[in-house]
Amino acid sequence: MNIDEAIEAATGQSITIQSPGTVANMVCGFDILGMALNDPFDIMTVKLIGEPTVIIHNADDFGLPTDPQQNVAGVALLDMIERLDNKTGFEITIEKRIMPGSGIGSSAASSAGAVVAANRLLNHFFSNDDLVQMAMLGEKLASGVKHADNIAPCIYGGVTLIRSILPLDIISIPSPPLFVTLVHPQIEVRTEDARQILRKQILLKDAIKQWGNIAGLVTGLMKSDYDLISRSLEDVLIEPVRSILIPAFAEVKSKSMEAGALGGGISGSGPSIFMLSKDEATALAVEKTMQEIYTPTGIPFHTHVTTVNTKGVKPMN
Amino acid sequence: MNIDEAIEAATGQSITIQSPGTVANMVCGFDILGMALNDPFDIMTVKLIGEPTVIIHNADDFGLPTDPQQNVAGVALLDMIERLDNKTGFEITIEKRIMPGSGIGSSAASSAGAVVAANRLLNHFFSNDDLVQMAMLGEKLASGVKHADNIAPCIYGGVTLIRSILPLDIISIPSPPLFVTLVHPQIEVRTEDARQILRKQILLKDAIKQWGNIAGLVTGLMKSDYDLISRSLEDVLIEPVRSILIPAFAEVKSKSMEAGALGGGISGSGPSIFMLSKDEATALAVEKTMQEIYTPTGIPFHTHVTTVNTKGVKPMN
Repeated sequence: MNIDEAIEAATGQSITIQSPGTVANMVCGFDILGMALNDPFDIMTVKLIGEPTVIIHNADDFGLPTDPQQNVAGVALLDMIERLDNKTGFEITIEKRIMPGSGIGSSAASSAGAVVAANRLLNHFFSNDDLVQMAMLGEKLASGVKHADNIAPCIYGGVTLIRSILPLDIISIPSPPLFVTLVHPQIEVRTEDARQILRKQILLKDAIKQWGNIAGLVTGLMKSDYDLISRSLEDVLIEPVRSILIPAFAEVKSKSMEAGALGGGISGSGPSIFMLSKDEATALAVEKTMQEIYTPTGIPFHTHVTTVNTKGVKPMN
Repeated sequence: MNIDEAIEAATGQSITIQSPGTVANMVCGFDILGMALNDPFDIMTVKLIGEPTVIIHNADDFGLPTDPQQNVAGVALLDMIERLDNKTGFEITIEKRIMPGSGIGSSAASSAGAVVAANRLLNHFFSNDDLVQMAMLGEKLASGVKHADNIAPCIYGGVTLIRSILPLDIISIPSPPLFVTLVHPQIEVRTEDARQILRKQILLKDAIKQWGNIAGLVTGLMKSDYDLISRSLEDVLIEPVRSILIPAFAEVKSKSMEAGALGGGISGSGPSIFMLSKDEATALAVEKTMQEIYTPTGIPFHTHVTTVNTKGVKPMN
């Protein structure tokens, strides 16, 4: 089936998908590692329409822009329309369940979910790497930087390594079962600000420590060596700077470790904190710990206990 | 068998081992990765003697110090004697085949070979990590810095990750078959000098590129993905600075790639250059290329074509 036939066959058709939250960086893998989650996720319906335009409906109360030029899913789909020589367009309905600004890849879920859904209607005309390129335009709109450490795991599923952005080089990293506990303290940390406070120059000796840990984490994941994963979940560069923006960060981390977590840190640029555990009982104990720390602060927060999503964006059951 | 019995049983006994050359750094893994080679190697005979001292004989023409305090194998064995409460000592004969100053782990082969051989006589009383600690004293004597990126692969064999020195954390990285072509242009590059010229501060964006490549290389090795190994063999930080010290470096590298090599770079701190290939025919073509480049320069040089040594230090057949 060529693309004209695919468009013709799918016009008027729609698909509903769920697009997962993601944890970028994974402690020591700043800008190169990310992991998809089974919970939370956004729900999106995408319909192929005749006109080369994007029509956006919000099915939630976040009040995100419906002008496609100002919407992360919108800009990704506009790019797809251009790649299709304006032969089609999309009407989308977005029900966001991943809170914008949570640091759990909310913008990536919107832009990646939209293009993956559209591509399914188009009989998988585009490659996953093409979809990453389109979805990164959403990240650029959201944070000013084209980065793929949420987009790639959202589309590929599992743990992904973004070895390089230019040229794009995404590699799936096999992982043993991992339970993820997340807490989202509802304070505002803008991705742009979280980037601004990072030092442009770092010490070579700190960088060496960091890349030892990255190599250790990747090896630990591929060998299913939980102890090595745990030892490698250390960030000597970014966390010491960014964690200042997150109330009770140090306490959440140390008490989660006491509760048995393998390790964890800031999810993306925050404010959410994620901790990894080997089993569900530990992940639930970590959640309780997080609740006990945040409840007295009066800061609104919510928690999730979930697992690694190995499929990425997928059709709703 | 306790240590006293082991010493008693082995006193007067000797063992002859071969201790392999090693390639530290492996392009993008500065200070954290190393690989053992099947060729070249040193030959050492270690004998357990009654007195708590180290007696050194040289069976080569390099004229290395025989005062144990000034000899890399000597300081490693003196440390072992101290750990054994001065209950024994060693007489060693060293035939160096790895040229000192070649950048192929000559000092590591001496210090690691000595302690591994001694430990075999002692019925494996010490752990591999203990042996690494002792042998690193030799590296400190040779270059002023306790580093393990030659010592670890020399003792463990194969490709090793040194995630951390303090605490010591060494991890074996599985690797597919790799052919290694080495050229040693006989100019002097002191490890100390090669360290001095490195910048203490680096750009975060360069560090991100580097750790993307390190994660890519480790993943490529573990997945036996030669293309990924090849794409990841890139060093944006150290090679641009250090390669200035090595004549014809850029030409050797580019022409080796044209001859089909997967990639390569400076071996340790140089001056040797190593290139990896998927098969022997390519590795031999790379060797020919290296010879064609260095012959007209008049610089004395020699080449090796070899494979990854998966055993590390081993008894002579």
